Formats: sequence, C-alpha cells, structure tokens
Amino acid sequence: MPVNFIPASELSPVQGVRLASIEANIRYKDRDDLTLIEVSEGSSVAGVFTKNAFCAAPVTICREHLKTTDGIRYLVINSGNANAGTGEEGMTSADLICAEVAEEGMCNLDCVLPFSTGVIGEQLPYWKIVEKVPALIESLDANNWMRAAKAIMTTDTVHKGVSKQLEIDGETVTITGISKGSGMIEPNMATMLSYVATDAAIKQSELEAICQDITTQTFNSISVDGDTSTNDSFVLMATGKSGVQLDEKNSDKIISALSDVCQELAQAIIRDAEGATKFVTVSVEQAPDYDYAKEIAYTVARSPLVKTALFASDPNWGRIVAAIGRAPVENINISKLTLYLGDTLLIESGEPADSYTEEQGQAEMNKEEITIRVVLNTGDAKAHVWTSDLSHDYITINADYRS
Amino acid sequence: MPVNFIPASELSPVQGVRLASIEANIRYKDRDDLTLIEVSEGSSVAGVFTKNAFCAAPVTICREHLKTTDGIRYLVINSGNANAGTGEEGMTSADLICAEVAEEGMCNLDCVLPFSTGVIGEQLPYWKIVEKVPALIESLDANNWMRAAKAIMTTDTVHKGVSKQLEIDGETVTITGISKGSGMIEPNMATMLSYVATDAAIKQSELEAICQDITTQTFNSISVDGDTSTNDSFVLMATGKSGVQLDEKNSDKIISALSDVCQELAQAIIRDAEGATKFVTVSVEQAPDYDYAKEIAYTVARSPLVKTALFASDPNWGRIVAAIGRAPVENINISKLTLYLGDTLLIESGEPADSYTEEQGQAEMNKEEITIRVVLNTGDAKAHVWTSDLSHDYITINADYRS
Repeated sequence: MPVNFIPASELSPVQGVRLASIEANIRYKDRDDLTLIEVSEGSSVAGVFTKNAFCAAPVTICREHLKTTDGIRYLVINSGNANAGTGEEGMTSADLICAEVAEEGMCNLDCVLPFSTGVIGEQLPYWKIVEKVPALIESLDANNWMRAAKAIMTTDTVHKGVSKQLEIDGETVTITGISKGSGMIEPNMATMLSYVATDAAIKQSELEAICQDITTQTFNSISVDGDTSTNDSFVLMATGKSGVQLDEKNSDKIISALSDVCQELAQAIIRDAEGATKFVTVSVEQAPDYDYAKEIAYTVARSPLVKTALFASDPNWGRIVAAIGRAPVENINISKLTLYLGDTLLIESGEPADSYTEEQGQAEMNKEEITIRVVLNTGDAKAHVWTSDLSHDYITINADYRS
Repeated sequence: MPVNFIPASELSPVQGVRLASIEANIRYKDRDDLTLIEVSEGSSVAGVFTKNAFCAAPVTICREHLKTTDGIRYLVINSGNANAGTGEEGMTSADLICAEVAEEGMCNLDCVLPFSTGVIGEQLPYWKIVEKVPALIESLDANNWMRAAKAIMTTDTVHKGVSKQLEIDGETVTITGISKGSGMIEPNMATMLSYVATDAAIKQSELEAICQDITTQTFNSISVDGDTSTNDSFVLMATGKSGVQLDEKNSDKIISALSDVCQELAQAIIRDAEGATKFVTVSVEQAPDYDYAKEIAYTVARSPLVKTALFASDPNWGRIVAAIGRAPVENINISKLTLYLGDTLLIESGEPADSYTEEQGQAEMNKEEITIRVVLNTGDAKAHVWTSDLSHDYITINADYRS
C-alpha cells in the first residue's frame, strides 16, 4: 500500500501530445505493456538519463538520437524487459523498433526515442513490439495519458500521474506527467521512467536547462535502496500548442508548475516504494555547499540501519548520528551539529539535548510522514532527499521479482 | 545460523597476556559483559579505528592514549552500550573507567584503552563498570580468551576466536585473536571489535605498519550493509614473551600468520552477519589500481538488489551488472569487462556469454559460498570484499534490536 497516496482518477490532455498503449505480451499477460507517445512537429524535447556505465541499449540510442535529431516525434516504451546487459543484440533490437516507428510515423529514425523497463539481462523480443506499431499509430489519442501511466508500470502497485493547469494571459497552459518506478530508485534515478509534457512553447536550449534543474531537485533527490538502474530516463516535452511562449514574465510560474508536477511524480515513486510503510524526508541545512548537504542527506537516506529503525518506528537516533558521521564529506564539525526528528530536538551543538524524552521520539517515529532535519551550522546551502523505510516486504518483493 | 562456521572450542593462551570477564549488568542480564585484557610491560600495541566523524567517546580516548602513552597495559571493553552520541558526559564516563583501571592496575591513565559496543545514544552507566574493576584485576588469567570472546558479543550468534602457533627456530610463537560484530559491518569496520595478540616481539613502528596493512586486506574488506559504526576498533598486541623477535628471515611467516588469524576473524563476522544465509566473495581483478577495484567490489557487495537476489538464489545477474555500472569510478570500459559467477562465465568482453545457461547460473546461486568475479582487463590491480546476502532475518534483527 502506498504511503498517503491516492492515484489520480483523471489526467488532462496536453495539446500536441497523443498516446496509445497496447498488449504486446512481452512478459506480462492480459495488460498493456507497450506505449507510444507522439509529440507534434516543432516540439522541444529534453531528456536526462541514468549515469550507470552499464546503461541499457535504449538509453544509448536515446542519447544519440537527441544529439542528431532535427526534432523528436515519437517515444516508444515497453515494460517487462529492460533491454539492458544485452550487448550488440540489444542495440539491434532497439534500432529495429525505432525503424518501424519511424516508417509508420513517417519521420527519420532519429526522431524516435526508445525506452525499456523490466528484467535486466534477457534479450528483448523486439518482434512482439514491431508487429504492434501499426496498431499503436492507429490508436493514438490525446486522452490516453491514464492508460499510458498504467502500461509503463512494473512492480508499481499504483499508477502515477499528475496534471496541472495554469492561466497565463487568458490562455490555459496544461502540464501532464506520468512516472513509473518503485525500487532500484537511487541517486541518479533508477528503473524510473517519467514523461512530462506541456503545451507551453519552450525553446530547446531553455528546456534542456530546465530539465536538468528540475531533475536535481526532484527525481535525483529520491532514494529507496541505493541502486541506480541501467534504464532511468526522464523526458520533458513542450509542444507550444497552447500559444503561450515561456518568457521573462511567466517563466517563474511555468517552471514552478513543471517542478511541482515532477516533485509529485518523484514523491509518488517513494510513496509506492517497494515495501514502504513511511515517507521520509531527510533535510540537511546550513551546509558549506549543495553537494556537501546532499551527500549527508543521501548517506542517512540510504542507511539500512536507519531504514529498519524507521520501519520499526524505533526512535533509535544513534543510527542517524552514525550515518551522518560516516558521510563521505570532509570536516564535519560535530560540535556545531543540531539534529531534529520532526519538531523534536535530538542533538544540540553536538550534545544530546537535555529536553529530549523517549516519548517525544516515539511520537515522531509513529508518524507515517517523518522528517529528519540535520542543521550543520557551517554554511548556507541546503538539500533534501526523500526516501522510504526498509521492511520485510522489500525483501519479499526483491527476492521474488523474477519468479 | 552462521554460514559454514564452527566456533573454536579452545583458544591458546599468549605469553604476556591475561584476561578477565565479568557480569556488570550494563544492559544484558546473566552473562559477562565486561572484559579486561592486560598485556605485559614492554608490549607493543597498535590500533586502527573507525573513520566515522561521530565516533564514540572511547575511540577518541583510544586515539589520544595511543599517542601519549609510554606503553599500553590494559584494554577495558564493555558490551551492551556503545557510549556513542553521548557528548561530554560520555567522555567523562570513559575517563572515569580508565582512571579506575589505571589506579587498580598501578599505571598511568594513558596506559589504558577503553572500548564500548552496543546501543548508541544512551549514557553509559560507568559506575557499574568502575565497581567491577578490582574484581577484574583479581581474576586476570592467561586462559580466559574464550570467556572474553563471549563477553564482547552483542547481536553475534556465536563467539569468534582463532589461534595459530608457529615454530620459529625451535621456539613456539602463538597468535590468538577474538572479534565481535555481525551488523553495521562496513568499509572501515563497524560495531566490530577485534583484539589479536602474539608473543612474538615486534617493534612499535613495525607493528603499526603491519596493523594498517592487515586491516586493509581483512577487516576493511568486509561489508554487511554499508553502515560504518561509531566504535569499530582493531587492536594488535605483541608482548615479545616468546623470545622470538620479528626479523627479515621470519617476518613473512609471522605476518602471514597474523594476517590469516585476522582474515578468519573478519570472515567469521560475515559468516555470522545478521540474517546471512550465504558467504559471498566479490573479487575485482585486472583493475587500474587497488582503490578502483575496491570501489567496484564494494558497490556490488553493498547493493540491496544483488543481496536479495543472492538470498533468493536467483541468478539475476543483471543486478550485478547494474551495480558494477554505477560504481563511483571513472571510465569503466564495459566492452572489456568479463564477469563470472563461480566458474560460470556470464559476460565476456561486455557481451552476454553464448555459453551461459540459466541452469549453470542456478547451480552457482544454490551454493552457500558464492564468488562473483569481475575481470576489468584494464590493469594489474585486484581487490576483494566479503559480504553476505540480505534476508528477512536482517530486517527482523534490526527492526527489533532495541526492544
């Protein structure tokens, strides 16, 4: 059961975007597992991908196509098989899929971006995808966001989608995004796929910068278990069909709405994290710089001992302190460090707080939403990481995933 | 149940070393939880300690005393309370304990090294220790190694001790060591305590160098869960009472025996890792340098997804590949990488091996002792990490540890 998360019951269409999903029987039976997203000609499309050196074939191809394309038109996404660890044969499979979409969609090969998510190390049965492409093209529709959100799921227990609308100078700008992912979620994303589209007009170079910034604050600030996937991808699309152009006056408003959608999608992944019973924010403040703060936040968020204590609702704050102490940063000044669990002061200037009682700690730990706040008092930078606890169900899900 | 581990039924006394253990009721009832180790005057003593910035009070004091002492005489070790995260009060507690041992043992304060292991963040009831010191001094005996091995245990399910004897020029040199630790075991050791003594004569400066080298190859090559404790300590003692002096001729033999004892003690911790059902060696070979190899080995050894696959005996090697790919090293050349599970070839020069069958992988995974061998083909360096799988029992033990 996701923590404090009610899946969206409808998602707004975005002008210039059409979607289709279908059953291709790649691994799953009796459910959609193949999705095509079409963006109108002239759209800007930017992507951020996994930093895993052993990245999947489709990730390599996405990077190439984004470099050479004169405009992305199609995204083709399968679930059930990651097409990772599949060598040259995997590259060929992804190429064949792109070629079929390009032919049916009447565009160049490099106008197609391929994505795969699922089991690593098995060859992708590309022919099952290729043969469905004509039917996908046929059934493209602006109202298919919800169906796409469900088709891209793997171990997710709920679909994840968010829509927002803004009024700008009398025009409506729509933003709709979907994401999938519930495990292997880590620093630079992990078996996480997310697609967010807006009908605002945003220049390619600006969209790329926005995409990077938002990723740092949202999808790259989540952690379930420290594992980074071979396939993580986030794609931001701007069709311009609303007629509203991003400019100095409206940019804060539009970027902030894009960021909100991505934050909700990123948090939804954590709320639906494998076996999660808590939603945990680790916030590190007053640090010398952002990376310093984030390293500490990640070290706490990744600690299996902290995560099992959270699962047990045990205010065993010694484990938090031990995790902070082993963070890979130089010169942590413990004597300046202050630590809160929710509103409860645990450590003040490096010393156990006199005011602390086990009852206070227990009350904070009993909550479903927990904030661990580390105040370093050695600078102005801050960073946060959203994470979950580590439960029996995590082991069950991951020990049984392939069977 | 530890993996392939039969605890020693006896441990050899080491000339010049006497030990005593006693019930002090610090946290546990009806068991020894306080130990004193005495080394004869003129012994060399070297130590390696946690790199955790939030290190425990006794670790800080150990470091100071090793700097200023004219010769360590006593080690005092309690289990049940780590005296970590305890601020100034914790420092005072550890000081008071050392002062009492120094008075009863008739030596300077800085001839005493204090150690604590157990729950973090609770003040140490130092008076329970202080009042037992006279009785400890009274009962010191060379034959108490086994009792000490048991008294330092916390979540360990078995005691850990190893003895070895060498003949050198007609003289017998004895090495005996004990260790404790079964969780939080990570890179630079973790709630791991180990004490190894020999009656060979080794100069202080030489012993310090040997201590560092052995630590890198043994105690700093184990990983259970990525958490580094506030209290980890390894102490190597040489009394010289055998009459055998370390020299050019015998040094390989003596150092190799010391290293073997430490390797057995380090591996025993992994074999008894919380919830472990497998003993896993991750070996990275033909790397550009040692640190490069070790980073990759640790990334694989720490991956919760790899560890749950090991628990499930699932030859889901894609997870191993994904972990290698996200290791924090520069320029991994995937196209040169070869990967074995035991003797079974999985990946050859970056491509899935044609010879591989799921049956082969399954057969390797079904074993209790598993070796993951990563051959980078980009240098001459190699490193290994010993680790365990991640099971339901890990969660149970760590969710319930304080209750």
